[in-house]
Amino acid sequence: MKVLVLGADGYLGWPTCMNLSRLGYDVIGVDNYLRRTLCLQEDCDPLFAVPNLQQRAELWKQKTGKNIGIEIGDLCDWGFVERIFDHHQPDAVVHYAEQPSAPYSQKDYDTAYLTLHNNLAVTFNVIQAVHAHAPSCHIVKLGTMGEYGTPNIDIEEGWIEIEHKGRQDRFLFPRQASSLYHTTKVMDTDLLWFYVRTWGLRVTDLMQGPVYGLETEENAGDERLYPFFNYDELFGTALNRFMVQAVAGYPLTVYGKGGQTRGYIHLMDTLQCVELSLRHPPKEGEMRIFNQFTETFSVNDLAQMVKKTGNELGLDVKIQHLENPRKEMENHYYNPAHTGLVELGLKPHKLTEQMLTDMMRTIIRYKDGIERQRIFRNVKW
Amino acid sequence: MKVLVLGADGYLGWPTCMNLSRLGYDVIGVDNYLRRTLCLQEDCDPLFAVPNLQQRAELWKQKTGKNIGIEIGDLCDWGFVERIFDHHQPDAVVHYAEQPSAPYSQKDYDTAYLTLHNNLAVTFNVIQAVHAHAPSCHIVKLGTMGEYGTPNIDIEEGWIEIEHKGRQDRFLFPRQASSLYHTTKVMDTDLLWFYVRTWGLRVTDLMQGPVYGLETEENAGDERLYPFFNYDELFGTALNRFMVQAVAGYPLTVYGKGGQTRGYIHLMDTLQCVELSLRHPPKEGEMRIFNQFTETFSVNDLAQMVKKTGNELGLDVKIQHLENPRKEMENHYYNPAHTGLVELGLKPHKLTEQMLTDMMRTIIRYKDGIERQRIFRNVKW
Repeated sequence: MKVLVLGADGYLGWPTCMNLSRLGYDVIGVDNYLRRTLCLQEDCDPLFAVPNLQQRAELWKQKTGKNIGIEIGDLCDWGFVERIFDHHQPDAVVHYAEQPSAPYSQKDYDTAYLTLHNNLAVTFNVIQAVHAHAPSCHIVKLGTMGEYGTPNIDIEEGWIEIEHKGRQDRFLFPRQASSLYHTTKVMDTDLLWFYVRTWGLRVTDLMQGPVYGLETEENAGDERLYPFFNYDELFGTALNRFMVQAVAGYPLTVYGKGGQTRGYIHLMDTLQCVELSLRHPPKEGEMRIFNQFTETFSVNDLAQMVKKTGNELGLDVKIQHLENPRKEMENHYYNPAHTGLVELGLKPHKLTEQMLTDMMRTIIRYKDGIERQRIFRNVKW
Repeated sequence: MKVLVLGADGYLGWPTCMNLSRLGYDVIGVDNYLRRTLCLQEDCDPLFAVPNLQQRAELWKQKTGKNIGIEIGDLCDWGFVERIFDHHQPDAVVHYAEQPSAPYSQKDYDTAYLTLHNNLAVTFNVIQAVHAHAPSCHIVKLGTMGEYGTPNIDIEEGWIEIEHKGRQDRFLFPRQASSLYHTTKVMDTDLLWFYVRTWGLRVTDLMQGPVYGLETEENAGDERLYPFFNYDELFGTALNRFMVQAVAGYPLTVYGKGGQTRGYIHLMDTLQCVELSLRHPPKEGEMRIFNQFTETFSVNDLAQMVKKTGNELGLDVKIQHLENPRKEMENHYYNPAHTGLVELGLKPHKLTEQMLTDMMRTIIRYKDGIERQRIFRNVKW
């Protein structure tokens, strides 16, 4: 099965390329290095340097004998998108190619516009290219649990049956996100659902929670194959960031009361979920939605776990509650369903103290590279 | 009260400029003539030529002594948008500045991309400009009843209370539109609702049904002040188009079974609704949604009414059922609420035989200008 991985250079993109390659898929990684460019512009390079895609593909070939094809180009450019879909005739496409940071999307006009334009143009171009050049291609799209926000009712997997004044119908589960970035994902869902109904596309939309982790089966023992690991407020995810702060002796920055609860997932489980989705494609004209996380934690839970593990490693970890720079609920009901991927065969790697200890030991080896001014940026909204 | 009317050149824009000017508002009309350009490109110029905005403003001044300011520029261009908001400091903005045709949005890649890009970029720029330069400015946004689609439950005015597994919350009423154009309006709603919650904007989102009509209080007796009147499948609305077809001896083209039911509104009532919204602004941080139509008709109802009126005027009107080129339900439940604007004071002008007769008499005077090849374009989706 030939798979295009869009956004192949990112935190999830490169591990996905290797995972699918190892499992026998014919993988083409596509990227324009937007994420690297933004990190450079914002002075928030990741914890360690990462080789470029051609170098990574070469390292992978040396290690496994397997080829990962690389296409460098901008997926907002229709000419480029047409060319790669027409040339490769993919059976599936994994679409990660979006600006992925909520604070970046809230920073100023230019970062907001880039997020809106990039994310929607890429999703639109992928839809159009599949329709025109590879109509049975399965689109696996990375959405986010953040699309749902924090409603006062149970969150179902993508859909809800509504009974109203004695009649009923089935709808997309209501979405109301808490950043522009997350709102662009809501808009992606609207766009995909329209074209699924209109053109009979096959789509799997994965509502993913924040991801943590570094090691996967493919990169274990070879840190040159590690993904980007951002620890800054813009591009770093919650748990990864806290671990770096603990190592750097920087108080763990909890926004407001810290009751904000989300569904988290280990990087290895993201890879499982994507591969399970590819192996079990939806029917033509079906938009299948899964909630992709394995456990829920509050920010306070994460801070306490990191503090405990850090202290056991001899670090002096402090927790600091800051005035919340974001507009979000700090104490809320949160009960999202997440059975669909387990039914497909997902075997979760839950967050253990051993896992935290291993990750923090890796980070300690890169301690000298941590630049403290990258950690807190105070983007307000 | 100073009001920017965005999309001032359009079918609704120019009548709105005159109506608000007559009622004492300080009006600035803004447009880049996109609609005219698209009509030219697609060979679907309206039934009669329409003066440009400066000429119309001059005609209006001669007639009433009142000034309507004109700004020509592209609202996708942030520099232009910033300049006009900063310079005029509007109390309100009426936002019509979108590519308004469903079939145009479904024609090909370029027309779809233009629709997506233009509609979202303009809405985004308006939001950003209000926040940066006129934070208490009331945004009156033209949405569409088409955002809701044709669900099997009663359509409420924008919002729905959902009870689910013993808990409840209030959400945007579920939206699932049946063209890319309508889907961009759904995405506009998502974007507005996010920034209303985040920045405390004041927004009135008007879910309007198809509009018909030509004469208003302001242009009566002066056809140089009439709005664009398109009769082609791309830019003409259902009832207007059928009347021209009747006059031209072109069978009324009913798609499929013709049971497609929508909420319709006369142009004069659109003007009332917009002015009532301006006169009664929402609170800061409130997104107020009204369903803006006065009566529901099926396509068959419209065809029968036009046929009857046409026959009485001595025309030989035929009805032809074509294979439906669109993906839509041809028989469906449809019961949308529409009480909010009536509560604000709307006095509906319902569709009467007299009204149809008057409109058809006007069209008959322009009969020689009707180009038959413009009527049916067979855009499929």
